[in-house]
Amino acid sequence: MEVMVWGENIHERADASVAAIYPDGMHGTIAAGIREHLGADACVRTATLDQPEHGLGDDVLRATDVLTWWGHAAHDQVSADVVERVCQRVRGGMGLVVLHSGHRSRVFRELMGTTCGLRWRDAGERELVWTVAPAHPIADGVPAVFAIPRQETYGEFFDVPPPEELVFISSFGGGEVFRSGCCFTRGRGRVFYFSPGDQEYPVYHQPEVRRVIANAVRWVAPRAGVEDAPYLSQQSDRGWFDRE
Amino acid sequence: MEVMVWGENIHERADASVAAIYPDGMHGTIAAGIREHLGADACVRTATLDQPEHGLGDDVLRATDVLTWWGHAAHDQVSADVVERVCQRVRGGMGLVVLHSGHRSRVFRELMGTTCGLRWRDAGERELVWTVAPAHPIADGVPAVFAIPRQETYGEFFDVPPPEELVFISSFGGGEVFRSGCCFTRGRGRVFYFSPGDQEYPVYHQPEVRRVIANAVRWVAPRAGVEDAPYLSQQSDRGWFDRE
Amino acid sequence: MEVMVWGENIHERADASVAAIYPDGMHGTIAAGIREHLGADACVRTATLDQPEHGLGDDVLRATDVLTWWGHAAHDQVSADVVERVCQRVRGGMGLVVLHSGHRSRVFRELMGTTCGLRWRDAGERELVWTVAPAHPIADGVPAVFAIPRQETYGEFFDVPPPEELVFISSFGGGEVFRSGCCFTRGRGRVFYFSPGDQEYPVYHQPEVRRVIANAVRWVAPRAGVEDAPYLSQQSDRGWFDRE
Amino acid sequence: MEVMVWGENIHERADASVAAIYPDGMHGTIAAGIREHLGADACVRTATLDQPEHGLGDDVLRATDVLTWWGHAAHDQVSADVVERVCQRVRGGMGLVVLHSGHRSRVFRELMGTTCGLRWRDAGERELVWTVAPAHPIADGVPAVFAIPRQETYGEFFDVPPPEELVFISSFGGGEVFRSGCCFTRGRGRVFYFSPGDQEYPVYHQPEVRRVIANAVRWVAPRAGVEDAPYLSQQSDRGWFDRE
Repeated sequence: MEVMVWGENIHERADASVAAIYPDGMHGTIAAGIREHLGADACVRTATLDQPEHGLGDDVLRATDVLTWWGHAAHDQVSADVVERVCQRVRGGMGLVVLHSGHRSRVFRELMGTTCGLRWRDAGERELVWTVAPAHPIADGVPAVFAIPRQETYGEFFDVPPPEELVFISSFGGGEVFRSGCCFTRGRGRVFYFSPGDQEYPVYHQPEVRRVIANAVRWVAPRAGVEDAPYLSQQSDRGWFDRE
Repeated sequence: MEVMVWGENIHERADASVAAIYPDGMHGTIAAGIREHLGADACVRTATLDQPEHGLGDDVLRATDVLTWWGHAAHDQVSADVVERVCQRVRGGMGLVVLHSGHRSRVFRELMGTTCGLRWRDAGERELVWTVAPAHPIADGVPAVFAIPRQETYGEFFDVPPPEELVFISSFGGGEVFRSGCCFTRGRGRVFYFSPGDQEYPVYHQPEVRRVIANAVRWVAPRAGVEDAPYLSQQSDRGWFDRE
Repeated sequence: MEVMVWGENIHERADASVAAIYPDGMHGTIAAGIREHLGADACVRTATLDQPEHGLGDDVLRATDVLTWWGHAAHDQVSADVVERVCQRVRGGMGLVVLHSGHRSRVFRELMGTTCGLRWRDAGERELVWTVAPAHPIADGVPAVFAIPRQETYGEFFDVPPPEELVFISSFGGGEVFRSGCCFTRGRGRVFYFSPGDQEYPVYHQPEVRRVIANAVRWVAPRAGVEDAPYLSQQSDRGWFDRE
Repeated sequence: MEVMVWGENIHERADASVAAIYPDGMHGTIAAGIREHLGADACVRTATLDQPEHGLGDDVLRATDVLTWWGHAAHDQVSADVVERVCQRVRGGMGLVVLHSGHRSRVFRELMGTTCGLRWRDAGERELVWTVAPAHPIADGVPAVFAIPRQETYGEFFDVPPPEELVFISSFGGGEVFRSGCCFTRGRGRVFYFSPGDQEYPVYHQPEVRRVIANAVRWVAPRAGVEDAPYLSQQSDRGWFDRE
């Protein structure tokens, strides 16, 4: 499986506090967590905003089975072409894992059809992540509940379509709740949104979080390749019965 | 309730066969069907593509609770501004009923996040509409199955996200099946897609079809008004517990 | 609409603390809240465990559109006949609102097909109820979040099938989360589960809770009567096409 | 993976026409189809109604990851103990694939909470099975549509809860439609219902059908073992925060 971990890679270079937590970039740490769990099942690469075509050229995307997306400060700097190309690949079958502030990325908003807005505040509170779909593959090996010691707070209402499967719900010190693990299908592609992961805290070093992301990569991976132009309307000249 | 029935109104003027079936325009017939069922509960207006801002200016949309949409030949002539404005109103709570070839409208595609493609062919075959959610308000008073004597054929795969509620499934003479009555939520707004209704056949004169559309108008209608800028991300400076 | 509020009515008579909060019985208070909101739209009656057939004889159920259920200490004293009769009526279209500890009632477990178990502890903590489906009729007029000052704590995993629509999620002082407002369909009938309401706290006197329950009664109410023996398998001797 | 294929094995012995199609019993043919696809990944056994405890003793079930169920003529001869045991194992994580007339089995009805009734007639018509969830693992390698030349006709309304994921919809010569591939979750267990497979026709010899069933076996298989008494309500004496 070819996995591409995309990172905005701005905070890591601009903020010493973030660089201290993520010396290899957040994308580097996220990629390491996936490799740790998927081993030889996956070839994991990374790409960042500052690369030509943000590292997501047509040939790259064609060779990608699963894309993970972390962005925050520069959603508007992602080119419309790349947004469109990514969305098309997802509709054709490429898996997509959207992380944390990626909820406001143009890719996620275009695939959801909603604002993807939410309530937030940053007080470094403890987040508890509860499994509400224990039979789901993304919950495999994940405890019934685990704590992230310090995190940005996200709260409802989270303006996404009702998730087709809701795997995790989080609570925060302030009493907020958040649907933190949400599954969606778009065309032949699967999308998983997972909210933990602010740049100010070492969330992607945490074993439970790494496990969830690795499980998600497996779950969104396409079963039978990615199609180029799936599901454009097509005319049949005869009914099924007549075709034989 | 303020209902706006939007019609492209092209076929009715260009094709004598369509004009013969719909002398008041398809939008006129659809509006009449809604009035028939909702009576004094609704004020039903119509608007068409050729009007300034397609008859959907900002003030008009602000006064609209439910919009129905039929388009086919000129999806690309609908201005980007109007598409955006309609989508925003839906996210804020305005109900939307998308009819037949409206599946390819920019409004519907933007709200769904998918291609909204399907298989089709036009052989004037019989469509059978089966109720698969008898407890749903949109199925109220609709028979377990009814026939549309002649219709264009739509078939799966219909590239929309899995409907949150699936109310009707149709079969066609050629053996095709189609999820013909689909419910979605986007933000505070509700969306219902109903596939019967090609311009070449008198589908919108049929009592069962009128009943479904009127039920759908009631179901998508907002409970508590429409908000202007709902669900943009907002920061709280304090947690809930701290606010008291 | 004919509404029957069923209450176990044991704690109210055995525990002075409960009697002090609910001098008319919990069922009396719940019924008053529904009357308050539905007014002339509903005729609200009550029935209790100690009545013959628990007040739910065949003729009573036949005249009932919506049943609400609160039980806790005596789930096993509800006769199998009454359980079966209630489940059959729900499948035929009668609406059902299950409250708090009613999650362990035989009626709810039989309709869900699961254990309906959950985590709990009683520390009189504050519960926050968050709306996660603002477009849903049951959320109409309910704030984005409201607090119940003291409540028993319910926590995930709540062993019900994934709700068809999830309207509310609660958090508790201990960090627990709970899917506190859940919609289900069974046959022609609709079921809403709402978790607030322990006997030790005056939850059913609280305006927001009363509003939710009244909204739920409206939402589960059958559109077109209740059928006696719905959906037993039936043989057709001819296909649909041949029948005409 | 330990797979148990359960068959009623009555028609095969009583009706020469069925025996001619299924000389090894329907269970034998179903088991062969699963072995064909899962190979060394699965150990596939069979059990039948006439065995002690129907071949589903406690120790057998404890060693079973996935159970498939075909029954028709003798649903009432399945002992209540075995029904209860199977349902408990499913809630604890054992996968279940219910085939064709198994829709009326006590196991399926108890897990669904509905009558599981449907319309039917047997005219040996052609069934077309359409994929409506191409991204689903159970659709992997299954064509967009395939035909079963002769089959019993099943039609809507199929009285199950709305499937959590709908993978296939069938149409029949008489115009009926049927939700023929339906996914459910119950506790930690997953359930897939697949309707093709009347005893009078060689459906389980057909490659597409075998592929679907093998895919389903993989999909319902538990990720992390089966629990004995999952999700009975449990009291915590302290909140999560206090536990540390």
